Amino acid sequence: MVYVTRRETFSAAHRLFNPSYSDEQNLQIFGKCSNPEWHGHNYVVEVTVAGELDKKTGFVIDLKILKNIIKEYILEKVDHKNLNTETDFMKDVIPTAENIAKAVYYELKDKLPSGKLFSVRLFETENNIVEFRGE
Amino acid sequence: MVYVTRRETFSAAHRLFNPSYSDEQNLQIFGKCSNPEWHGHNYVVEVTVAGELDKKTGFVIDLKILKNIIKEYILEKVDHKNLNTETDFMKDVIPTAENIAKAVYYELKDKLPSGKLFSVRLFETENNIVEFRGE
Amino acid sequence: MVYVTRRETFSAAHRLFNPSYSDEQNLQIFGKCSNPEWHGHNYVVEVTVAGELDKKTGFVIDLKILKNIIKEYILEKVDHKNLNTETDFMKDVIPTAENIAKAVYYELKDKLPSGKLFSVRLFETENNIVEFRGE
Amino acid sequence: MVYVTRRETFSAAHRLFNPSYSDEQNLQIFGKCSNPEWHGHNYVVEVTVAGELDKKTGFVIDLKILKNIIKEYILEKVDHKNLNTETDFMKDVIPTAENIAKAVYYELKDKLPSGKLFSVRLFETENNIVEFRGE
Amino acid sequence: MVYVTRRETFSAAHRLFNPSYSDEQNLQIFGKCSNPEWHGHNYVVEVTVAGELDKKTGFVIDLKILKNIIKEYILEKVDHKNLNTETDFMKDVIPTAENIAKAVYYELKDKLPSGKLFSVRLFETENNIVEFRGE
Amino acid sequence: MVYVTRRETFSAAHRLFNPSYSDEQNLQIFGKCSNPEWHGHNYVVEVTVAGELDKKTGFVIDLKILKNIIKEYILEKVDHKNLNTETDFMKDVIPTAENIAKAVYYELKDKLPSGKLFSVRLFETENNIVEFRGE
Repeated sequence: MVYVTRRETFSAAHRLFNPSYSDEQNLQIFGKCSNPEWHGHNYVVEVTVAGELDKKTGFVIDLKILKNIIKEYILEKVDHKNLNTETDFMKDVIPTAENIAKAVYYELKDKLPSGKLFSVRLFETENNIVEFRGE
Repeated sequence: MVYVTRRETFSAAHRLFNPSYSDEQNLQIFGKCSNPEWHGHNYVVEVTVAGELDKKTGFVIDLKILKNIIKEYILEKVDHKNLNTETDFMKDVIPTAENIAKAVYYELKDKLPSGKLFSVRLFETENNIVEFRGE
Repeated sequence: MVYVTRRETFSAAHRLFNPSYSDEQNLQIFGKCSNPEWHGHNYVVEVTVAGELDKKTGFVIDLKILKNIIKEYILEKVDHKNLNTETDFMKDVIPTAENIAKAVYYELKDKLPSGKLFSVRLFETENNIVEFRGE
Repeated sequence: MVYVTRRETFSAAHRLFNPSYSDEQNLQIFGKCSNPEWHGHNYVVEVTVAGELDKKTGFVIDLKILKNIIKEYILEKVDHKNLNTETDFMKDVIPTAENIAKAVYYELKDKLPSGKLFSVRLFETENNIVEFRGE
Repeated sequence: MVYVTRRETFSAAHRLFNPSYSDEQNLQIFGKCSNPEWHGHNYVVEVTVAGELDKKTGFVIDLKILKNIIKEYILEKVDHKNLNTETDFMKDVIPTAENIAKAVYYELKDKLPSGKLFSVRLFETENNIVEFRGE
Repeated sequence: MVYVTRRETFSAAHRLFNPSYSDEQNLQIFGKCSNPEWHGHNYVVEVTVAGELDKKTGFVIDLKILKNIIKEYILEKVDHKNLNTETDFMKDVIPTAENIAKAVYYELKDKLPSGKLFSVRLFETENNIVEFRGE
């Protein structure tokens, strides 16, 4: 097994907000992350694919292809977007780093031409990092 | 002369938008940076103070004090905020990296107990960086 | 399972020294790391918590809370301290990166309000990194 | 179990090329990475050793020794070299990041005085990363 | 005056070699950097433009345009290329970091729609950095 | 003029302490940086040399030579040392980042075979940076 990772970045706006709570409760739980006027991040996403080496290419998956898959299915929908209002695959979940990583994982899971999706790692800031490896 | 730099980070939402232009013109000039639903960044700000060494302390300016000044006058107003709608010192300018750096410079210019503000450097992303050194 | 990581930094002094050995033996084993006049590092510590997503918050653990736990139980005891003489939880062990990571792990293990401590990763320098995941 | 990682860097030339294919086929599969005039990278290699702590030293493996082993068996053969024509342990494989990580793993596997080789992680660029953990 | 910087990366092969010297002399001066089988780097290039802020856009120069200019005139000619044999603007000079930075500077000098080229900074490795600001 | 920079790192212990003050006054001025049991840092030092390009080599100064000069005159005296008690060139000054940068500058000023020392930049942490360019 070899693990192959592609790192990409995107810039997006979001706020942490649970519509089933009052504004006051949201503020209590999420603090300044719940600011109704939004805030945003330069997210870093690392997508890791595990698989056997193809002898003819020396690849698990061609990283140019992995890059294009991430671009098409993820970056086009999140870069310079509002994760709460504009990203279809974030509908109905609170856009925490945890939920973004999980949603990205399920968006990519069935799109790979070779190898198996192993994990999605998301840096919300240089100090806050989450990773989802499936269930 | 010694140059002393404090690096800080903040996360904010913004959009590039000139109210004297039509939406179409804004889109043409600013592209996806003009998205009406906002986007955001993890900004890095580097504030550099130039001055003589104080023999008694070995400092140009105590970096703890510089850190607190940046926190009070800048970070409190930009971190987890919307730079277009919530930051008083960004009123009436388009929140490009250039204008943010310039505004931060003038906010801090007269607040230093020792040394002289030399420059404000702002990273909007790891690839886009601006610096303002006064006029 | 989602893995959530908080990155923190601290600056400390230490020396590698086994009191059951002679000075000569310590020098032979630890080289310049055994300098009796001390040396120090900017350590980076990454604390990873694994757990289920809480549907109401979208969190495994609130990273603000994790940050505060690391601050109270670890950073207060190691930042700008001497790890050999001042840090209670490093008593009786040689302050190698390995032993620091292990001690930090056991200090934090029972302090988490949700999730389970998965690992503690410690960078002694940008080139020397250790990780402890429990026994 | 403690995991100990040493990070090293080297600069090398390579091209992706499968001699059983025509030039046209190589170009189709590998694109610009197949340029016959070569290109190169600043590779970063992270070697991770897993093991028990030695109570007398607080080490899994002395990182100075690990550093020297990597230098002798790997860096001397790849740094400022051509991976296709000059590195003995890359003979007969296409020098993809995957194959380099795998070959480095097997070169180091039996050279460690303590602990067990856990993984070799290789950064070809800041965005393309592979890891091999044995079979 | 505001300074605006765009950071880009490219991967290339090169060797340090002065054709007016013998192989022996080249080896003596340039050491392993003169390896006839080539080696390579992940270069980082930072292009800085200085200028006045345009009130209508808040830009010195649109960073998307600067990015495209660097791509067209520099990256297309150096990325995944051999700097000694394939890059027209490196003809007749030894491809040291100094000469690359200088050549990039003169390639870009007259291509900017606004602002004035201030400097080109080139990272050959994370430890070797050069900057050229014109004569 | 071309500016050539070599980046090096070292790990050292220090404390901020002015012997002409009482312990109480030192604590008041320097806070936890004055801890009598020491603390330490992974310092990063960037030495920049300015000069003309030598046509025969394409160098301002051979970076291997600059590396060796920094090693001999600086790193040997500071790496894994106590800056207050063991570093001859730090005698009689408080080891603030400012004073270290200044002292390193004067140690290196007359040791260069070509070019002119332009600046010494010192990172005490990733957030605290000083630069000295001579008087």
